[in-house]
Amino acid sequence: MRLILAAGTTRTAAIEGVSAAGADPDLRAHTPSADAEIVAYGEPVRAPVVPVSPTGCPTPAVVTRAVREVLGFDLTVVDGGLAEPTAAPTVTVGARPGDDIREPDPVPTGPGAFAAARQFGRALPDDELLVGETIPGGTTTALAVLTALGEDVAVSSSLPENPVERKRAVVDAALDASDAAPGDFAGDPRGALRYVGDPVLATVAGLTVGALETDTPVTLAGGTQLLAAAALVRHAGVDASLSLSTTSFVADDDGVDLPGAAASFDLDLTVTDPGFDRSDHAALVRYVAGEAKEGVGMGGALALADRAGVPMAEVRERVETLADELGGEP
Amino acid sequence: MRLILAAGTTRTAAIEGVSAAGADPDLRAHTPSADAEIVAYGEPVRAPVVPVSPTGCPTPAVVTRAVREVLGFDLTVVDGGLAEPTAAPTVTVGARPGDDIREPDPVPTGPGAFAAARQFGRALPDDELLVGETIPGGTTTALAVLTALGEDVAVSSSLPENPVERKRAVVDAALDASDAAPGDFAGDPRGALRYVGDPVLATVAGLTVGALETDTPVTLAGGTQLLAAAALVRHAGVDASLSLSTTSFVADDDGVDLPGAAASFDLDLTVTDPGFDRSDHAALVRYVAGEAKEGVGMGGALALADRAGVPMAEVRERVETLADELGGEP
Repeated sequence: MRLILAAGTTRTAAIEGVSAAGADPDLRAHTPSADAEIVAYGEPVRAPVVPVSPTGCPTPAVVTRAVREVLGFDLTVVDGGLAEPTAAPTVTVGARPGDDIREPDPVPTGPGAFAAARQFGRALPDDELLVGETIPGGTTTALAVLTALGEDVAVSSSLPENPVERKRAVVDAALDASDAAPGDFAGDPRGALRYVGDPVLATVAGLTVGALETDTPVTLAGGTQLLAAAALVRHAGVDASLSLSTTSFVADDDGVDLPGAAASFDLDLTVTDPGFDRSDHAALVRYVAGEAKEGVGMGGALALADRAGVPMAEVRERVETLADELGGEP
Repeated sequence: MRLILAAGTTRTAAIEGVSAAGADPDLRAHTPSADAEIVAYGEPVRAPVVPVSPTGCPTPAVVTRAVREVLGFDLTVVDGGLAEPTAAPTVTVGARPGDDIREPDPVPTGPGAFAAARQFGRALPDDELLVGETIPGGTTTALAVLTALGEDVAVSSSLPENPVERKRAVVDAALDASDAAPGDFAGDPRGALRYVGDPVLATVAGLTVGALETDTPVTLAGGTQLLAAAALVRHAGVDASLSLSTTSFVADDDGVDLPGAAASFDLDLTVTDPGFDRSDHAALVRYVAGEAKEGVGMGGALALADRAGVPMAEVRERVETLADELGGEP
């Protein structure tokens, strides 16, 4: 089993109030570089920070790393438009940081990254792939992509109170900037990615298409951003079976109809509850309060642990230890 | 335990008769990209070829991968100046492909790569590092570096008959091109790397210096190229303890005084014999005949297997299976 983690950035994350994936906009640019390092090495190496939300909720990379320490699965990070250096080894697909989607052509490297990631996905020799993402602001670009494809699917948030109105306003402005209306990019995933998407979604969607074309089973590991990736795969005309593994925090989000969305993209859905409500550790309590929820492959990693028969108590203990070691109060 | 593999190129490898790391000069440019993929995935992914010598001896990457499949150690590939795409995830230190050392300034990125690799080595959280290399033509640039530092150490070869005279002529021309005499770069490792070295040696030496400065034990995994790396580390003024693990094929090379060289750079030497003479598999027979000998961390991987109590018969069996799967007749 290999986790492919697409890590990148969009300047959409700098819009006030759309993302909690980093304590402030400057630090947020380091979040995907640091997340990749935490899953690869267990701690930040070149990145200057442990990503936390403004209230101190640690990045879901900690959970994915905790499971990796128990199960030892392989990791490949793909550079989906990183803006800051990372010590995590990365595969290059030509993605560059995405611009604010309210600009007219925010992801010119998107179609090329989709094509290169597809080739990479076709060539990978693994029996099975888990595909995750880390990109602050990613639920907003996911909402824009879903809207551009004409899919009426609500997205989750790394904030406990989902700033839905704010996201909708950004999406409207993004479509306006590209002279597009909702549904205009139906059947045109590359167009949706380029004009209202982000480089990580381009990478994830391309990789998934390539892997499925060569009959490699793929599990999308994440929440509503991965639903957008699934929508892109379906709009690319690929109807092979595809799975989505996410956390109970996304499933419990009242603003998201996860089973409905999974059904509309024909996804085999797995939801895993890590039982963080049985812990009184400050880091886990924040997840129970609805922060972070998902990301960096967390839901997929938890499902792997569950499938391998690892008790969730062991996962929680490892998460607590790692969170203590990493510290990272904002 | 983590193997750091520095993978890169020098146009010195295109000089007729200096390298067997690839069937011909064009394919040789793909060798380090393919080697990194074989250790990472078990087969070439983006690279168009399984590296073999002109006579069909498979790359030592196969041996390192075989041990990795048994022991499961971590791998980080550093881009030490790759010339062709690789699907192996890589860490960037700013190294670019090296030019033929008979040019006046063949490795302008060498000092920068040394500095960035040193920072990376300082930051790595591992308890212990194994450092290997893959660069066709690397023994010739290693000889040039040793000569420039004033160290009278002979180098090995991936060819059964070491083309010593040819290498010496290249080294003489390299020093001439930089208006330098043997020993002129003593105490100046960055100068030696830039004017007569290669980007992989710069990466390996910088990484080792950084790791040793932060008290991380380092084992140089390889043959005479790693002796040149050790010389660079000592000429950088670092006297911390340092180990070298290599194969019996290098130790048995009559042209190389391995114990003498190890003593002069104060290296703790480990030699591991994989017992390939007990196999009649075509791939292993070529090693016994003196081809390849070492590379891609092979000697270090074998020492790891030995330390972990893995019988060499098991390693051989895995190497034979992998060599059969990969094929790769020239």
